[in-house]
Amino acid sequence: MKVLVTGAAGFLGRTVATYLKEQGHHVVGFDLKDPGIDGLTMQIGDLTDLDQVSAAVEGHDAVCHIGAIGDVYLAGEDPGLAAAVNVLGTANVAEAAVRHGARVVYASTWEVYGEPRYQPIDEDHPCAPDHPYNITKLAGESLLLSAARLRGLETVALRLGTAYGPGLRPNSVFRIFIDRARRGEPITIQGDGSQGRQFTHSRDIARAFDLALRSDVSGVALNTVATRTVTIRELAEKVVERFPTELTFGPPRPGDVPPATVSAARIADVLGWEAQIPFEDGLADLIDHELAGD
Amino acid sequence: MKVLVTGAAGFLGRTVATYLKEQGHHVVGFDLKDPGIDGLTMQIGDLTDLDQVSAAVEGHDAVCHIGAIGDVYLAGEDPGLAAAVNVLGTANVAEAAVRHGARVVYASTWEVYGEPRYQPIDEDHPCAPDHPYNITKLAGESLLLSAARLRGLETVALRLGTAYGPGLRPNSVFRIFIDRARRGEPITIQGDGSQGRQFTHSRDIARAFDLALRSDVSGVALNTVATRTVTIRELAEKVVERFPTELTFGPPRPGDVPPATVSAARIADVLGWEAQIPFEDGLADLIDHELAGD
Repeated sequence: MKVLVTGAAGFLGRTVATYLKEQGHHVVGFDLKDPGIDGLTMQIGDLTDLDQVSAAVEGHDAVCHIGAIGDVYLAGEDPGLAAAVNVLGTANVAEAAVRHGARVVYASTWEVYGEPRYQPIDEDHPCAPDHPYNITKLAGESLLLSAARLRGLETVALRLGTAYGPGLRPNSVFRIFIDRARRGEPITIQGDGSQGRQFTHSRDIARAFDLALRSDVSGVALNTVATRTVTIRELAEKVVERFPTELTFGPPRPGDVPPATVSAARIADVLGWEAQIPFEDGLADLIDHELAGD
Repeated sequence: MKVLVTGAAGFLGRTVATYLKEQGHHVVGFDLKDPGIDGLTMQIGDLTDLDQVSAAVEGHDAVCHIGAIGDVYLAGEDPGLAAAVNVLGTANVAEAAVRHGARVVYASTWEVYGEPRYQPIDEDHPCAPDHPYNITKLAGESLLLSAARLRGLETVALRLGTAYGPGLRPNSVFRIFIDRARRGEPITIQGDGSQGRQFTHSRDIARAFDLALRSDVSGVALNTVATRTVTIRELAEKVVERFPTELTFGPPRPGDVPPATVSAARIADVLGWEAQIPFEDGLADLIDHELAGD
């Protein structure tokens, strides 16, 4: 398929674009800047500009819409920027995809649910996001799903688990822990470290995008999370096993999403996807990439 | 209080601005154009421009944030415009209000709930909007409430019933029915006419804004609806009583929100508000204004 990947200069977009090329798709990236990925054609443009988005989507069978203010802390500091990129930008992708008959696979997030009313959280659980990041990601998802109902858009939203893998942004908990431990500095856990996350490897996520591209399922959101929960404390301890250093505890960060168990049963049923990369392997691989300076 | 009313050139903003002036507030309107309301100072500006919004908010104790793409059909045709004005615009109002220490009372909508899971719908009911209008209005509300939690903003969201009153936009069901019946043309009900709405008079809504301005309640959304449900068929019949003409039925409009009963118990408890204008009086008054060419 001819696939446009928005956000191809970012951590997840780059992984998905690379994976899709390996799977034989004809891939073009879209982002504000060229990440310089070997063999990846880029279209430089801004998601908030409909003309640029529409020109980029034209001629593609599908769009993997990953471009976003994906940095939770940046979204919290500048909700207007998150609104422009994540909501208006996604409205523009939907409009362009309707115009050009392209399918859209959207990078949504498990954080759309907010406080759990029951667990494990399935896709019928109410959505009550409470932070500019997840509020704007949900609004983008809802606009895509409404375009499926009202305008015949073909689209699937993948509610991704917390993604990790090579190329993670420097302010992710993985990078912070690894970078500090490598330098022999203490690692500080914010909160008591018991908060768990279903860390999901970016290559597993890329495979879900591929399956969703090839499927004819439409108008649905699917949890796309690894089933295993790893606590922040476990993560820190695994990093300390590799680079021995001191573990300390600090106050929780405001806006941190409370832990919740999310079900991945529906995507297994609908797309035949489940996460395959064991956390230990993914973490070791990430550390190796860090050491190699990737 | 010194109050900025966004959307003051629109139907609801104009009514609220006028009412608040009558109640002794110092009111300034904000909109893209000057509606030419006697004695109302206007600040001309665009909600999507943070600098313009911030300059307008400065010096005010509070903002009644009513400016929006409030026309459901326009929002459906141009979701990007709805995203820009309703989400980015509201993020800008939140940012400006945090900077200048202003309280925000937000015009949300009962339509944020989507398909009812139980009735009457209270404020704890899940929100699952399904149309660009209510999706973007909910995202704006959520951003304001998150700013209350994360940044100390004082804000109340009023989830308004379907508003009616003098100055309604020409494509509202009221104006369409009245204008056709006056000309002796048949009135067409879309769907079977059994869908009910808790039509809420714009002067009752304006009173809720005043109460919310004066209250110190913050960080909550409150249903602001008349308790009585009137069906579209009843509305049509009342118009036909005044201007005898034929009643016909057509197919339902896509995107029309299904009927639901919404509870106004919490706002009665929290702000002491309930709708006071009987539907018959409000409708007769609206027709009189139409006949007077207002």
